[in-house]
Amino acid sequence: MIKKDMVYEGKAKKVYSTEDPNLVIIHFKDDATAGNGAKKGTIENKGILNNKITATLYEILEKNGIKTHFKKMLNERDQLCEKVEIIPLEVIVRNVIAGSMAARVGIEEGTVPSNTIFEICYKNDKYNDPLINDHHAVAMGVTTYEDLAKIYDTTAKINNLLKETFDEEGITLVDFKIEFGKNKDGEILLADEITPDTCRLWDKETGEKLDKDRFRRDLGGIEEAYIEILKRLGAK
Amino acid sequence: MIKKDMVYEGKAKKVYSTEDPNLVIIHFKDDATAGNGAKKGTIENKGILNNKITATLYEILEKNGIKTHFKKMLNERDQLCEKVEIIPLEVIVRNVIAGSMAARVGIEEGTVPSNTIFEICYKNDKYNDPLINDHHAVAMGVTTYEDLAKIYDTTAKINNLLKETFDEEGITLVDFKIEFGKNKDGEILLADEITPDTCRLWDKETGEKLDKDRFRRDLGGIEEAYIEILKRLGAK
Repeated sequence: MIKKDMVYEGKAKKVYSTEDPNLVIIHFKDDATAGNGAKKGTIENKGILNNKITATLYEILEKNGIKTHFKKMLNERDQLCEKVEIIPLEVIVRNVIAGSMAARVGIEEGTVPSNTIFEICYKNDKYNDPLINDHHAVAMGVTTYEDLAKIYDTTAKINNLLKETFDEEGITLVDFKIEFGKNKDGEILLADEITPDTCRLWDKETGEKLDKDRFRRDLGGIEEAYIEILKRLGAK
Repeated sequence: MIKKDMVYEGKAKKVYSTEDPNLVIIHFKDDATAGNGAKKGTIENKGILNNKITATLYEILEKNGIKTHFKKMLNERDQLCEKVEIIPLEVIVRNVIAGSMAARVGIEEGTVPSNTIFEICYKNDKYNDPLINDHHAVAMGVTTYEDLAKIYDTTAKINNLLKETFDEEGITLVDFKIEFGKNKDGEILLADEITPDTCRLWDKETGEKLDKDRFRRDLGGIEEAYIEILKRLGAK
């Protein structure tokens, strides 16, 4: 499969068309941003690590009945995926309160809520990916109540599978962000990536952060953290 | 019924205890604020007008099966209400998109969505009354999923009743904010107020704003707008 035109460039990935109109090649870059692009940098080898981490996790999810866009890894930085139209929502799950939610309502980071927290944000850089709710998303024509019900149901299953996967490797899945897309048949597929860029992952014993917060908060040891995640998942 | 101690002072009202532990007296002030207190002023006779407008609307709602804290007007500025513990949520309904939602996601003010939009904000000045969702509210211990279901159900009924009431008087109910509280028996009652301070009300023919946006946006004719609302409701 050969890359044709670049059809999209995001902050961490490029998407290329292929000779098959239903398939795209996704290329993982080393670029890192935080605060909606306010902070920019590079994490050495991040693209290579995130390509492998996403491939590993999406294979686990597929084996457990989650439909994803992922087909196969092509090389260190490229993966072949089914072409989807991305639903412009960031779907967020929080098992432990941290980051923007801690700041939004004044809850201490690390607080474990009695319920699992699901959020949607409108994927739009101009408006800083604002938190919205289901009614907003439907009013904006971004999705329907029916599709949202499917998305939340799938997201809850993904959370359970990922929590278990990371837990077995001594890692707490604090929170994560996923995106969904629709394929040519209108099926909703998990798209985008699941990596330390898009999850908060804390070592269960030491509490050490093994994710992009090391970049956001200038904690150092960023590449090492991503390598550690891949290493532990490699045991799968 | 005589006022005893002032037990709470908000931006637009004071609450006094009475000799009956289950009743309070709510006093309506002329003070007006906007932008979470960033803008402060006085709207002449607002307290008198809002006391009457709330009394009129709550009587209509009560007649139609909505349980409210309202008992009776005592004088121009005071009303007797059942004592409740306020649930710290602002429950917002939007029939037309305006204000913070228009700004949040970049939709033109005046857009009529295909669905009714319900929102909850966490009532907390320190965090600027942030938009949250049901999962946040439950995680914060502010309410339960069961109580939220009741609150949304009642809110939808209130919206239908108020829309009809205002429509008959040539007014579009664009959006409004309400608050609920629990009485000593744990019953959820509509509390607080429903006034041009807490609604957006547009004249159906001219589009003229007859609400606190005249204060927020320095449009002048503020008291006149509130008088107009009371006058039209007076026809009830």
